[in-house]
Amino acid sequence: MRKLVRSQSKKEGLAPGSAVFVGIKRAKAVETHVIDFDETQIIEKQLRSIEECLEYKDRPTVTWINVIGLHESKMIQALAEGFGLHPLVQSDILNTTQRPKFDDYGDYHYANLKMVQWDHEKNESISEQVSLVLGPNYVLSFQERPGDVFEPIRNRLRTDKGRIRTMKSDYLVYCLMDAIVDGYFTILEHLGDKIEEIELAVVDKPGPDTLKDIHRIKREGLLLRKGIWPFREVISGLDRSESELLSKATHLYLRDVYDHTVQVIDTMETFRDLLAGMLDTYLSSLSNRMNEVMKVLTIIATIFIPLTFIAGVYGMNFKNIPEVQWQGGYVFALVIMAIIACGMLYFFRRKKWL
Amino acid sequence: MRKLVRSQSKKEGLAPGSAVFVGIKRAKAVETHVIDFDETQIIEKQLRSIEECLEYKDRPTVTWINVIGLHESKMIQALAEGFGLHPLVQSDILNTTQRPKFDDYGDYHYANLKMVQWDHEKNESISEQVSLVLGPNYVLSFQERPGDVFEPIRNRLRTDKGRIRTMKSDYLVYCLMDAIVDGYFTILEHLGDKIEEIELAVVDKPGPDTLKDIHRIKREGLLLRKGIWPFREVISGLDRSESELLSKATHLYLRDVYDHTVQVIDTMETFRDLLAGMLDTYLSSLSNRMNEVMKVLTIIATIFIPLTFIAGVYGMNFKNIPEVQWQGGYVFALVIMAIIACGMLYFFRRKKWL
Amino acid sequence: MRKLVRSQSKKEGLAPGSAVFVGIKRAKAVETHVIDFDETQIIEKQLRSIEECLEYKDRPTVTWINVIGLHESKMIQALAEGFGLHPLVQSDILNTTQRPKFDDYGDYHYANLKMVQWDHEKNESISEQVSLVLGPNYVLSFQERPGDVFEPIRNRLRTDKGRIRTMKSDYLVYCLMDAIVDGYFTILEHLGDKIEEIELAVVDKPGPDTLKDIHRIKREGLLLRKGIWPFREVISGLDRSESELLSKATHLYLRDVYDHTVQVIDTMETFRDLLAGMLDTYLSSLSNRMNEVMKVLTIIATIFIPLTFIAGVYGMNFKNIPEVQWQGGYVFALVIMAIIACGMLYFFRRKKWL
Amino acid sequence: MRKLVRSQSKKEGLAPGSAVFVGIKRAKAVETHVIDFDETQIIEKQLRSIEECLEYKDRPTVTWINVIGLHESKMIQALAEGFGLHPLVQSDILNTTQRPKFDDYGDYHYANLKMVQWDHEKNESISEQVSLVLGPNYVLSFQERPGDVFEPIRNRLRTDKGRIRTMKSDYLVYCLMDAIVDGYFTILEHLGDKIEEIELAVVDKPGPDTLKDIHRIKREGLLLRKGIWPFREVISGLDRSESELLSKATHLYLRDVYDHTVQVIDTMETFRDLLAGMLDTYLSSLSNRMNEVMKVLTIIATIFIPLTFIAGVYGMNFKNIPEVQWQGGYVFALVIMAIIACGMLYFFRRKKWL
Amino acid sequence: MRKLVRSQSKKEGLAPGSAVFVGIKRAKAVETHVIDFDETQIIEKQLRSIEECLEYKDRPTVTWINVIGLHESKMIQALAEGFGLHPLVQSDILNTTQRPKFDDYGDYHYANLKMVQWDHEKNESISEQVSLVLGPNYVLSFQERPGDVFEPIRNRLRTDKGRIRTMKSDYLVYCLMDAIVDGYFTILEHLGDKIEEIELAVVDKPGPDTLKDIHRIKREGLLLRKGIWPFREVISGLDRSESELLSKATHLYLRDVYDHTVQVIDTMETFRDLLAGMLDTYLSSLSNRMNEVMKVLTIIATIFIPLTFIAGVYGMNFKNIPEVQWQGGYVFALVIMAIIACGMLYFFRRKKWL
Repeated sequence: MRKLVRSQSKKEGLAPGSAVFVGIKRAKAVETHVIDFDETQIIEKQLRSIEECLEYKDRPTVTWINVIGLHESKMIQALAEGFGLHPLVQSDILNTTQRPKFDDYGDYHYANLKMVQWDHEKNESISEQVSLVLGPNYVLSFQERPGDVFEPIRNRLRTDKGRIRTMKSDYLVYCLMDAIVDGYFTILEHLGDKIEEIELAVVDKPGPDTLKDIHRIKREGLLLRKGIWPFREVISGLDRSESELLSKATHLYLRDVYDHTVQVIDTMETFRDLLAGMLDTYLSSLSNRMNEVMKVLTIIATIFIPLTFIAGVYGMNFKNIPEVQWQGGYVFALVIMAIIACGMLYFFRRKKWL
Repeated sequence: MRKLVRSQSKKEGLAPGSAVFVGIKRAKAVETHVIDFDETQIIEKQLRSIEECLEYKDRPTVTWINVIGLHESKMIQALAEGFGLHPLVQSDILNTTQRPKFDDYGDYHYANLKMVQWDHEKNESISEQVSLVLGPNYVLSFQERPGDVFEPIRNRLRTDKGRIRTMKSDYLVYCLMDAIVDGYFTILEHLGDKIEEIELAVVDKPGPDTLKDIHRIKREGLLLRKGIWPFREVISGLDRSESELLSKATHLYLRDVYDHTVQVIDTMETFRDLLAGMLDTYLSSLSNRMNEVMKVLTIIATIFIPLTFIAGVYGMNFKNIPEVQWQGGYVFALVIMAIIACGMLYFFRRKKWL
Repeated sequence: MRKLVRSQSKKEGLAPGSAVFVGIKRAKAVETHVIDFDETQIIEKQLRSIEECLEYKDRPTVTWINVIGLHESKMIQALAEGFGLHPLVQSDILNTTQRPKFDDYGDYHYANLKMVQWDHEKNESISEQVSLVLGPNYVLSFQERPGDVFEPIRNRLRTDKGRIRTMKSDYLVYCLMDAIVDGYFTILEHLGDKIEEIELAVVDKPGPDTLKDIHRIKREGLLLRKGIWPFREVISGLDRSESELLSKATHLYLRDVYDHTVQVIDTMETFRDLLAGMLDTYLSSLSNRMNEVMKVLTIIATIFIPLTFIAGVYGMNFKNIPEVQWQGGYVFALVIMAIIACGMLYFFRRKKWL
Repeated sequence: MRKLVRSQSKKEGLAPGSAVFVGIKRAKAVETHVIDFDETQIIEKQLRSIEECLEYKDRPTVTWINVIGLHESKMIQALAEGFGLHPLVQSDILNTTQRPKFDDYGDYHYANLKMVQWDHEKNESISEQVSLVLGPNYVLSFQERPGDVFEPIRNRLRTDKGRIRTMKSDYLVYCLMDAIVDGYFTILEHLGDKIEEIELAVVDKPGPDTLKDIHRIKREGLLLRKGIWPFREVISGLDRSESELLSKATHLYLRDVYDHTVQVIDTMETFRDLLAGMLDTYLSSLSNRMNEVMKVLTIIATIFIPLTFIAGVYGMNFKNIPEVQWQGGYVFALVIMAIIACGMLYFFRRKKWL
Repeated sequence: MRKLVRSQSKKEGLAPGSAVFVGIKRAKAVETHVIDFDETQIIEKQLRSIEECLEYKDRPTVTWINVIGLHESKMIQALAEGFGLHPLVQSDILNTTQRPKFDDYGDYHYANLKMVQWDHEKNESISEQVSLVLGPNYVLSFQERPGDVFEPIRNRLRTDKGRIRTMKSDYLVYCLMDAIVDGYFTILEHLGDKIEEIELAVVDKPGPDTLKDIHRIKREGLLLRKGIWPFREVISGLDRSESELLSKATHLYLRDVYDHTVQVIDTMETFRDLLAGMLDTYLSSLSNRMNEVMKVLTIIATIFIPLTFIAGVYGMNFKNIPEVQWQGGYVFALVIMAIIACGMLYFFRRKKWL
């Protein structure tokens, strides 16, 4: 299961805003992937040196520099300084435990989001931090791991489909954000399917596993919520910033992403309510079953206990038990027992236990 | 039961805002139904070609084009482009998983609502997305399935009742929205009746079915809520837009629909609270019954267990049990048993268990 | 019990804002009661024709026309039209399922409230819709049933007590609203008394009736809430409307009613919390009792089960059971049993079950 | 226990805003206590006539008139009219069931608070309404009972400690409010102590008393909340009123009281959460104990029931039971019983019930 | 465990805003630690007299005076007066039960925070009040105990790392606040670890200790919340104050701390939800186990009770029980018993209890 809190202890004792990588170190080297395009041409490269990156900064074409892996903090810092980013931005890029946020630095904007993907093996969502820097004609994106939700965007760029090649960097950032929100929809579908499974199980055959499943989905939902709620603030922050970096058309698109984000949140709240209801139903089902078990026990026990008592009485070895001497004593005893048993059954029927 | 989340996966990997149909495909062809009217005359037609539609665009009369079925996305797109709708609107019309929303595009307004109807066979509500486009002298409405809540409006148009024929397209849109909200009231009545049934059952004869019913209504309510909450925002968005498309009189009417929407939401919240209370009551009823069962068991068991023990003692085969040799031994044993039984009963009465 | 949702189905298929009576039809004829007063004189009449009403419209004196019974919708409509009320107002007056609301129509104001009274026979609150129309020198009030909370106001008018005869129609409307809010306080007192009764019962002798009572009061509270929450908006709407119909002094009084409304809401929230707490207490009490019952059963059973077993062993018919042949066998068996019983009791005492 | 709702029925049928005493009548006469001071001198008197009071109205010194007891409504009214208070204020002073509120009447301010004190005998808080009227150079305070939280202020005035003698009436009102808020802190300490007691009891030895205690504190908290929440609004209302009655320095002090009020509310919310948690813990503890009891019963019963059955079998009187005739039959039976018992114990151990 | 409410009773009866120490007295003397620095040099001293402190007031260098221990209120007061602090500030510094707050006094700012540290011995968080005064070129900090989270800042100052030596007093205050917020992250990590432990325990082996742990963490969280929620207001208050004491750069840094604070709050809310879920899971687990226990009991009891009854019947001493005389009577009885036992087992299997 995903950790609840990622340790930040490496940062303790350092100057606030120090650019130190806080996250899980990976063996792979940091990859830097550049796509530089305008309406007429597109260049795609894998870079290893910072200098190569920097030369894209002032080109009139739109440049998207995607950095995969954050553990080589010096390199990241060099890149960030090359693009003139504030020390706090450098620190935010490297500290992957951040809450999603948006900051307007005038010349460029910084946003910080949680990208989610479904891990089909572990059957749970994985989340990682994506930092986006929107400059006049460049977009920097920083992610922790290879594998992201941006592949369709790259394909659209390569195949020159849709508006993307004719628009500026702000539209590209919108596309990236839209892809991230779409990632949440995928997770919601997975969770929705699971919840429907649990819904059936909870009434028909509730067991300890049902409980574990409810707990799991709940936890999953709580962690997702932490990522998507501030997402809304990020987008509305970007939308409200009266920056020249954003064209009027892009604002329209941003509002669309905003609507999607609200829809994700809405659905998550519905899931939350459904899960709460399911736990109640589960508990009620358990109580119901317990009741049934108890009833069977009670009926069997209360019928036979008096009968066994009578049998015990006539099993006593007293010299002069008159009934024992009777000719029809045995039948007499059996008849009494039958009467008691029937009386009991009648009582239970009247109580509607049978 | 209605699905919690409709799959959007067809959209994955496409440009954001692509106009792709997301919903359940139906076999039937897309129907296009046109009503064109002014104070003096009314024309009603079933169209199949886009061109026919477009000629209504600039007529001075009010035109209502109702498209039933969204699965032929090309046709929808052609129509939308013919009326000059923004690509985002085209995408919103086709994506039926949208959250209700309102967008002001200057020349025209786009709104997106969930229409609900009661499915008398399945005994649950069905919901579908209705898109409304309000232009200067036309109204476009898009729905997924045949069968809607607009029939009375068509009849009023045909029979020239009320204000509807003398007003402009904004009043028609108001009428459509009002009809959709009225649909929610119908659902609320059905749910209200069901809740009152459950209310009786929960105290008198609670069973596993009661639980299932509570869970069902709760779920129904949660899904309805997702549709009606943003409805309020849609209407107030339309009301606040200082557009020339809306006459002053229509604002008054819109506020009326708004009040109705709030009333639906209020009633839904009351239902929610009632259902929460009912589940508690249900659980308490179960506990009560359990208690009663346990008491009966305990009383029977605790009275007879000591008696049976005594019978067992005098059933032992020891050589010299003095009581066994007594003349009145049997009566003596029975008397002792009676005393114990009475003592027990007295004890229970004092504990107020009887 | 009060219905949760009143059917509006009669309205389905009609033009929105149609003036159709939605409510429970009564046999009695509609009564129209008029009080016309100024500082020096007062006239009180029972009218049956609309024309008679209309002549009061433009008199300089203050006229209060109180219509009791709404089922003759034509008459109501005629009256409303006579006073120049908007069709939406006519529809609102007749639709008794409305949510309380306030509308400013310029020349006159319309408000819509839920009047509550305590039904001493059924021991529950009854609620009906009261519509108020405040004009320059008239007040129209519409109620569904005879019997209201306005009698003291009529008496004050008749006996010329207080400010009421010297003030204008706005003060009269304030008085009516104040009387309606005071009606809620009466209900709160009844509910408060009941809640205190339940509070005692819940700890001392909880039973299924306690549960029903809690559920009942909760329901009562939920329905009241639906009436009083929007009340607040109505009054603040009236207070904020910068209408010439309201004198400066009246604003002061309105704020006082507003404070009372908030107090009703506050008290209702406290009741709600108390009831929630009581249900928890009730469930805990049940669990407590169950525990006690279980303990008695367990103690009796666990003491006697081993003893009965021993008795059973020595009741076996085996040829050579040595103990049976012993002279002191019987005493030996009794002693062993006593030891086991004491051991058990010691064990229970250590576990603090006794 | 404190009543939930004080009856207002005496007011029913009277003009709204009538000055009628609503509260519990006391035998004692109304006391009027006056302190008149400036920097150089202080006069303290017990008055009985209204005229005496009124002469303090226009003195340049600061006058604090404290009225103890509200049941002689005529006298209160005369005083209020002497100071030119609005009829609504007179009514608010006498109606002790009011929600705390602040009203700005231009020349003077009216505030209405709940003063709480700890009743050491009944071990619960008592609350009464205090009305404060702040005039240019006088402060009127009205309370229901003798005994208040203002004694330290009187002492400070008498002994000329602190700023109080050098400041105007606004500072005096601040001091009174501060004393009232401090009263809440005292109650919080008492409640906090009780909650800590319950915290220990709930896990170690939960019993029905624990439940009663939780319920009691909860109720206490709910009633306190009703008094302190609007307190905040009162103070911020006073602070925001741009009145000349308040000096700039006093605003600073008011913000301090405001902070204290928020702290009281915060602590109360924490208590509320703690108590909710405790009830859960209590219920869990009960379930835990129940489980333990059930386990003991089950273990004892399931071990001995089969053994007793075997003993019963060999106690049957059939002619030819072969085992009974065996030489080692008795030992054989005992061995079988031992094996069964051991098997059972092994089973329980594996289930981790032992 | 930490006390819920610290007693303020020492303050009762004193003038509001009196500077009296409210907190736990410590034996150690008050320490005053001064660091005075600019870009070129740094002086660090341990002072004992107030006069020594005051001479730093007007130096152009930045001076940080850290007072450890608040129980010598006279000394604190003298220092505060030396720096010209308002009496309310003096009172706030000494009253350690304050809610965190920010006050803008024009020349200087006062803020009041809860510093938390993890007590590794008691395994719980400890919290103490830290008061910060930000002047033009000095920072005063007051804490109750030795041992704080500021050591790294001192080290940075000494070793001249980062920006801190080149910036003014506002940056120093930012650093202190950042260090305090970082302290909360440390606590969150500890709590997160504990919650994950409980998560495992709650499903696998729930016991009374799990319950205590949940309760403990919940309590811990509630107390932390009381400290961190107002923290947000403090920082945003400082950020919004348009004071000249804060440079533009510092505002950027403050927003960063603000984001961290929100992140702490978010995480705490997530913990809260998780803990609530865990308690539910715990209760469900208990119910599950109870169910299992009950089933075993019921199965054993209901199988053997009828068998024992039959054995009892044939153990009766009646003269003429025909079966007893039969040759195959014993076998006949055993067969009947076997049939009953199998029937029962079949019944349980059908009920899916086995």
